[in-house]
Amino acid sequence: MMSDERPLILVTNDDGIQSKGIRSLVNAVAPFGDVVIVAPDKPQSGMGHAITVNDVLRLNDTRLFPEYTAYTCTGTPVDSVKLGISEVLHRKPDILVSGINHGENSASNVLYSGTMSAAVEGAMENIPSVGFSLLDFDADADFSSSEWAVAEVMKRFLKHDFPKHTCLNVNIPQLPVNEVKGVKVCRQAKAYWEDSFDKRHDQFGKPYYWLKGEFNRSDRSEDTDIWALDHGYVSIVPTQFDMTAYHAISEINAWEF
Amino acid sequence: MMSDERPLILVTNDDGIQSKGIRSLVNAVAPFGDVVIVAPDKPQSGMGHAITVNDVLRLNDTRLFPEYTAYTCTGTPVDSVKLGISEVLHRKPDILVSGINHGENSASNVLYSGTMSAAVEGAMENIPSVGFSLLDFDADADFSSSEWAVAEVMKRFLKHDFPKHTCLNVNIPQLPVNEVKGVKVCRQAKAYWEDSFDKRHDQFGKPYYWLKGEFNRSDRSEDTDIWALDHGYVSIVPTQFDMTAYHAISEINAWEF
Repeated sequence: MMSDERPLILVTNDDGIQSKGIRSLVNAVAPFGDVVIVAPDKPQSGMGHAITVNDVLRLNDTRLFPEYTAYTCTGTPVDSVKLGISEVLHRKPDILVSGINHGENSASNVLYSGTMSAAVEGAMENIPSVGFSLLDFDADADFSSSEWAVAEVMKRFLKHDFPKHTCLNVNIPQLPVNEVKGVKVCRQAKAYWEDSFDKRHDQFGKPYYWLKGEFNRSDRSEDTDIWALDHGYVSIVPTQFDMTAYHAISEINAWEF
Repeated sequence: MMSDERPLILVTNDDGIQSKGIRSLVNAVAPFGDVVIVAPDKPQSGMGHAITVNDVLRLNDTRLFPEYTAYTCTGTPVDSVKLGISEVLHRKPDILVSGINHGENSASNVLYSGTMSAAVEGAMENIPSVGFSLLDFDADADFSSSEWAVAEVMKRFLKHDFPKHTCLNVNIPQLPVNEVKGVKVCRQAKAYWEDSFDKRHDQFGKPYYWLKGEFNRSDRSEDTDIWALDHGYVSIVPTQFDMTAYHAISEINAWEF
């Protein structure tokens, strides 16, 4: 990361190219390198690590970022990363950033989040990657604290080596910059969605469902992202993708297969 | 798991209700409990942990499993699990099984796999959950070894406590039952896709892309799922969803935020 050249920064997101969040992210990272944008052409929230295997993908021009090389992708956030690297950049970027997401991606939300899955895909390809999310779902949310947080992370990115096959999950509380308490490095809280569905009936009387649910913020230890966010800090969870439950290997071995 | 009643088993998959794999799974688990099926109405391979948040979901009847309570879901594998629990069972099942997938889900494929994401969703809801995958993409693959492996796992499920918030990732080699060497409990190999795209042009001369790639099986330590499968064993990786890179916390703390 400590070369003389400006780093090549690939920017993507999951709210789609039209969202305010990706514009804020582009503005915030532009001082730190050369920006190329490849982002979904439509909202892709909740797409997790989905990839498009049964359909074709397209890259299209966009007039939304005339000052940059920018494409929309017809697929998911992870598709955008893969296509961006293979067919736009023709090499791995030096840094991959995703977001700024309109909404929280703390705790186990990392699994549902297209924003974070794009960053995890970067980690799989061993690219220093960061996903940024603001705790505000509003389409017109105020991203000024987020832009401050992006700059704080980017400055350090350029000075330090990045752990291999890892990405950062950065969440920003919904506070003005001068009320943010600081930045905390955390673990992913054990917090889950308690699902429910809103059952309605269409004009023919047939039922349909909207997924809803309540996020159970029960794991509030001081070392968690949830605690940090609840107390006014930006949370950073270093994130990897080895999902092995190492503690359970001996337990399952005792099943005597 | 050691009650006198027959356990309630929720069955789902990602290849869709029409696939041969889910029929094999239903047949293999039926002796062990009461089966209810909620599965996607169309192929959902590669959907990872995607959920449907910007569209409605439906549950539809199916004539494919007249002897069971069975529904198709218009969404993803994870949607099928959530809808199955909330709107079909109205309670958590005792066991959740997903598959049998037509194709391998070893190593980091766990992140892309709808089959495994359904099982991980089960783990998040603290339901003993297993995803099964056969190393054969053929729509008419021979699932007899897989059915043997399902029975081997199910027998032990009923006898032992299951580690909390964990699921099993079971992969079955493409071998006749009498050539399978046994069952190995493993860790997730560090193996990745080397992506490429097949670029073609449509009837208007505009480019489009098919995702392809080569699976780099470079991590072949004896404790990995890849090693087990390459040597004729069924692999079982206990799988969890805390993606924190604990080893990197001190490293990122040294960045002095």
